[in-house]
Order: sequence, then C-alpha cells, then structure tokens
Amino acid sequence: MQIVQQQQCFGGRQIRYRHDSQSLNCSMQFSVFLPPQAEQGPVPALYWLSGLTCTDDNFSTKAGAQRMAAMLGLALIIPDTSPRGEGVADDPQGAYDLGLGAGFYVNATETPWNKHYRMYDYVLNELPALVERELPLNGKRAISGHSMGGHGALVLALRNPARFVSVSAFAPISHPTDCPWGQKAFTAYLGEDQSAWAEYDASLLLAAKGCSLPMLVDQGEADNFLAEQLRPEALQAAADVDGAELTLRLQPGYDHSYYFIASFIEEHLRFHARHLAG
Amino acid sequence: MQIVQQQQCFGGRQIRYRHDSQSLNCSMQFSVFLPPQAEQGPVPALYWLSGLTCTDDNFSTKAGAQRMAAMLGLALIIPDTSPRGEGVADDPQGAYDLGLGAGFYVNATETPWNKHYRMYDYVLNELPALVERELPLNGKRAISGHSMGGHGALVLALRNPARFVSVSAFAPISHPTDCPWGQKAFTAYLGEDQSAWAEYDASLLLAAKGCSLPMLVDQGEADNFLAEQLRPEALQAAADVDGAELTLRLQPGYDHSYYFIASFIEEHLRFHARHLAG
Repeated sequence: MQIVQQQQCFGGRQIRYRHDSQSLNCSMQFSVFLPPQAEQGPVPALYWLSGLTCTDDNFSTKAGAQRMAAMLGLALIIPDTSPRGEGVADDPQGAYDLGLGAGFYVNATETPWNKHYRMYDYVLNELPALVERELPLNGKRAISGHSMGGHGALVLALRNPARFVSVSAFAPISHPTDCPWGQKAFTAYLGEDQSAWAEYDASLLLAAKGCSLPMLVDQGEADNFLAEQLRPEALQAAADVDGAELTLRLQPGYDHSYYFIASFIEEHLRFHARHLAG
Repeated sequence: MQIVQQQQCFGGRQIRYRHDSQSLNCSMQFSVFLPPQAEQGPVPALYWLSGLTCTDDNFSTKAGAQRMAAMLGLALIIPDTSPRGEGVADDPQGAYDLGLGAGFYVNATETPWNKHYRMYDYVLNELPALVERELPLNGKRAISGHSMGGHGALVLALRNPARFVSVSAFAPISHPTDCPWGQKAFTAYLGEDQSAWAEYDASLLLAAKGCSLPMLVDQGEADNFLAEQLRPEALQAAADVDGAELTLRLQPGYDHSYYFIASFIEEHLRFHARHLAG
C-alpha cells in the first residue's frame, strides 16, 4: 500500500493509501487516522463504512471524529464505498444508489457486478489483514457506519461477532430486504431469488441469530429517509425478540447529513473505546 | 434574507441564507450557526472569513467548529469569499486566486472589479447590520479567518478596533503587498499605484497604527505556502515595534488544510469567547 496523501491532524496523522485489492480486482483508496498514541505502540481500530455516493473522504473531512479518536487512542479505518476505476461496472443510468459509490457491502453474485463488487469480503477480510500487517494496530476492532454503511456495519458484526467488540450505526438501512434502496441493490447484486438476501439484512439476521455484541444506533427524527428506507423499528423489533443489547436513540430535529453524524460521533467513539479497552 | 437550508447540529441550528447585497450588487449566500443558547436570548458572534476558492460551505462542513460554539454560546457568521452570479467579473483565465472565490476582502477601485467586488464593506458593515437586525445577536463581535480570510480578519480588525473584541487567524496572508497572491490581487482590484495597498496589509497597518485588540495567529510549519505567501514573521516584526498583543504560534507538522484548522479551532473559539464575555 502506498501513501497518496498525509496530513497532521490533532497530533496524529490522517493518511490516504492506495493499494491493489484482490477481493475487488481493482486499485482502491482508503483513509486512516492514526492517533498520537500509535507512535508509542499498537492501538485498537474503529472501521467506518460510509453511505451512498461517498468515498473515504466524506467521513475524514466532515465528521470531526479525529479529535476524540486522538484523545481516546483509536485508529480510524475508512474504506471507499465500492470498487472503482476503468472496467468496473456502473449503473447504466448513472443512478446514485447502484454501482459506483453504492457497493452495499455485499459479495455480488450476478453479472456484471460479480467481477468487482465484493465489498463484504474486502471490508471483513482483506482490509483488516492489510492494515494490521502494515500499521501499528493491536487487532482489536469495532465497526460503525452511516446509512448504507450503517447497514454494512451491522451486517458484518452480526455475521462475524468474533471479529468485533462492538458495533454502532447512524441512520442505518436496517431492513434492506423491505425498502426500495435495498430491494434495488439486492436484485442487481444478488439476483431475483430473495433467499440470498437475508444474509445481508440486519433485522433478519438479528431476529434469526441474536447478537452478543453491544449495539448503539442513532437515528434523526427529521431524516427524510427514515420512514421509507431506514426502518429502525424493524431492528428494534428483532432485538426485542431475543433481548439483544441494542440502544436505539431517536434524536429529535436531526436529519441524514454529516451535521447529524458530527453531533453524536463523540458518543459513538466513547462507546467503542470502552469496549475496545476491555 | 431567506433560508435556503437549515439543519440541526450540536443542539443548535446551521442555517444557510440568501439575500440581495447592496454593497456587492448581487445575490449572496452566507451561513450561520446559532448555538442552543440563542433560543434563550441574544448571543455574541464570531465572523469567519474563508480562504481562496472557498464558499461559506467549507468552514461550515470541515472545521468542526459547531461543537465548541454550541458549548460556549457563540454564533458563527460565515460569508462567501467574493460576489457571485451572472454579470460578476471573473479572471479571464479562470485563475483560482483572482475573481470568483478570491475577493480578498477589499473594496475594488478598478474596472471591471469595482462594480461588485466590495467585500470589505460587505463584511464590515452590511452583513453585521443585517444579521444583528434579523437574528438573536447581542452585537458583540470577534473575527477570524484562514489564509486570504486570515488577511481579511486582521485587516478588518486593525482598521476597526471598535467593532471587534478580538481577532485571530489561521495561516493568514500577513503581508500581501510583498507576496505574489497579494500583489496580483491588489494590482487588479486597487490598481498599479501601491499607495492604496497599505490599507489592506496587516503588517503595514500594525506597524503604522498598532493594535489594541488581542490577536491570536496559528501557522503550520509544514504549510507549503508559508515562506512565499504567508510571511507571519512580518506580522511579528510589526507587533514587536509597538508591543501589540500578538500571540503567534508555529505548529510543527501542520499544513494549510482544514485538518489544521479543525485541530486548533477549539482554542480560537475559547480565546474569542473569553473576550466576548468581558
């Protein structure tokens, strides 16, 4: 992995890397924040998965997360949201919710998507192996994300609870098999047969398997996507079935933007830091 | 003034307005952050002037200033960096450092610029009169900015110390009559006769008039523009002449970006809040 850009930030380093991804079969960029404590020895990491249309840049520049990450000694690992580059399939109509910037953190099985769109494997396996080999990380991981990335964080944690100590999300797509964004993406990436979809639906996974990890979810009540796309009540209902440790907070007045994320990222970082220290 | 966009942020409101500017002879956007304390009564305001190529959006989304502004009860008033719109002159070559996005906070006297480019009047008089009439502000003002905006903040405060209680800057263009950015802009906006330039040069103003206001300046030592364009040593030398209350801090490792601003904005807000409370 090669450094593309490196900047000092809150006494730590904000770094953008490029590398050739085996999972995605293309060249990828991702960003990392290394807190000042990483100069002394390995630190735990929070993986952040961004939402539709984002790259690794949005969270890096808009969330204000580095301040508290520097204070708590947390690394931030921030992947892109889809494979990129020439030859990578995109939606023919250029829709914002399919193709580039919209990988949905699944392993696509349908053509033409299955050649590159394997973001599930990339985030779960390839990226952690890479950064834990190359950077001062202690192998302890937490995961969070926003919207499509909140869906990704929940799905990755629910299916792989041994890999993470805690999971959180901002305005996640909580029940993608039953909302327009999820149905469109899953039909394209996974095919018409809906039996394959359940493995990528946080509410179905939680209801079926429960969850041993602490979960924190914030949702703005003024979020335009709340009722149609996000469905946090489905996640809450699934948690109620088996008594999973879900804290779902509805935040009056907040919308779907990074102003919402910035307002509550400190609490999410403190939540993860408590569990990463255990 | 009309609300274009409004979002909840740290318990306060981030608002973008549009209005017809008399000074600039065009329609303008600016952004405001109103802290939660503004619901209870009038609050003091920090004016933020952005740098080359910016709009009101850069500081709003990237500096992370709202957190501490909400804690301290400060409003943030964030104008654009030049007049905008059809009929507003721009550099014929589309240079980033002249014309749109590069108003340099002067009142232009040369054609074609003098029809719209009166950012000095706009920021000093029109904008404060407007927002203090329409919003819950108590009339106490501090001012800060970045790069070209740091130049603007220093010049406005040095020439009008009764209007502000304190001034700060990040990587300001400290001596524009003696650097390429300043010479190019002043030649275009103010003409070849350099006698008019001194009124817009913080180092010359400080040496000539002194300064009764507390001044805080942060400068990254890894800033690519430091030696050629920014010249903080000229500001320090001017301050040394008359014992002005300048705190100039060189920050090792930091560059010219918003990561630098985000890292130190809390200290600037605390600095201004102390003086605004007095």
